[in-house]
Amino acid sequence: MQAPASPEAVRAACRAGTWKAPTAGLAPSYAQANLAVLPQDWAYDFLLFCQRNSKPCPLLDVTEPGSPLAVAAAPAADLRTDLPRYRVYRDGELVDEPADIRGYWRDDLVAFLLGCSFTFEGALLRAGIRLRHLDEGKNVAMYRTNVPCRPAGRLHGPLVVSMRPLPAAEVARAVQITGRFPAVHGAPVHVGEPAALGISDLQKPDYGDAVEVRPGEVPVFWACGVTPQAVAVCSRPPLLITHAPGHMFVTDIPEESLAC
Amino acid sequence: MQAPASPEAVRAACRAGTWKAPTAGLAPSYAQANLAVLPQDWAYDFLLFCQRNSKPCPLLDVTEPGSPLAVAAAPAADLRTDLPRYRVYRDGELVDEPADIRGYWRDDLVAFLLGCSFTFEGALLRAGIRLRHLDEGKNVAMYRTNVPCRPAGRLHGPLVVSMRPLPAAEVARAVQITGRFPAVHGAPVHVGEPAALGISDLQKPDYGDAVEVRPGEVPVFWACGVTPQAVAVCSRPPLLITHAPGHMFVTDIPEESLAC
Repeated sequence: MQAPASPEAVRAACRAGTWKAPTAGLAPSYAQANLAVLPQDWAYDFLLFCQRNSKPCPLLDVTEPGSPLAVAAAPAADLRTDLPRYRVYRDGELVDEPADIRGYWRDDLVAFLLGCSFTFEGALLRAGIRLRHLDEGKNVAMYRTNVPCRPAGRLHGPLVVSMRPLPAAEVARAVQITGRFPAVHGAPVHVGEPAALGISDLQKPDYGDAVEVRPGEVPVFWACGVTPQAVAVCSRPPLLITHAPGHMFVTDIPEESLAC
Repeated sequence: MQAPASPEAVRAACRAGTWKAPTAGLAPSYAQANLAVLPQDWAYDFLLFCQRNSKPCPLLDVTEPGSPLAVAAAPAADLRTDLPRYRVYRDGELVDEPADIRGYWRDDLVAFLLGCSFTFEGALLRAGIRLRHLDEGKNVAMYRTNVPCRPAGRLHGPLVVSMRPLPAAEVARAVQITGRFPAVHGAPVHVGEPAALGISDLQKPDYGDAVEVRPGEVPVFWACGVTPQAVAVCSRPPLLITHAPGHMFVTDIPEESLAC
């Protein structure tokens, strides 16, 4: 199937079941989002967690309890059907990877949409900065760090970071470019020195694929939207539904409208 | 009394009752904050309101229910005593302006600290931009607009803006400078054309003091931390406690640490 080009077309193809693949590169120039769905009883803790940890969890939209509509991010979409694949966690355990979540939906669920690194990667590419995982057709390398997030209520867990190796001469420019986009993780949280994050071997990421760090390059670490999944494993809410990695929600938000 | 110079000294003087005046100019280079205290039952709505309206309500810290400690903003402070004056609203009506709120404190209260325009005014002054209300020893002019905030649960109400007249040649620079500080209202929400905000007469502000807009000057409007008080009047929560206008909470946060 030809890749759908507009946010509406991507979401319609997901809904119809004709697009089941990752969303990287689809609907270019529109922001994609991480999804986290929790029972209303956990919504305050999660909202506060996002406020206290805005680098890994930059909030783009929050739904009304029981409503699958993201009024600010894409008012015509249905969050239960319009992503290509989901993950369902019960008590912190992954129990299902369904293509839609109509069967899991309840009147007390609240959906949170968090900014996604695809947006800042596009800005880096447009500035001429190469990203090795894209050159090699891989998922970005991600690591659970030994840095705890600031807890909120029952939610606690480690910061997860993504790593991109960059030539030393491009590090500062990459900080400046991604810093324009605080709504999609913003500037790096850490530059160089993986051991200071508790990462002993960059070649063994906890999520995604390893890439080489070549001589003259520095590993640059950004806060990562996978953090809520690591937090769920630690905090064990009765139900958490997320997107499957790389299978994001495509919003109607022009990426450049998120720049500061 | 000589003005206390450090955040700790300001708070100690408020606690002792020896400082009862506005806090403008105290503890220079430390961020001051708007205070909003609500029952836990309303905390989710308020937190969501802040997420949906981050220009008027940029959150710096949120306390645990029943705790008067602002762990991130000033861990040694007591929010019940360390501001010079408070306002107490019951069902949207102002009922008291006490010097401390120990008598109002309850186990279910949650305190929110919001960034304050004093921080970006300092940045403007350091850049050589004059602010007329400061030159004239006045409170800044504030207006209830006809622009609704995005509602959240039971909370709804108008955006309140502050206005500073600037020479046309300084408007763009003021946008750039204040845009570095999203945690304290950030860039203006509106430049020129007060009628488009529903403001018919700049000489009749709803809060604060009028200042002249001279030929060659443009009225520049920033989202204002008084918005939660206007929202309380519309939404009538059973209890809301705020700082009294100008009588802010002085945090331990260096202002420059808030710059992006």
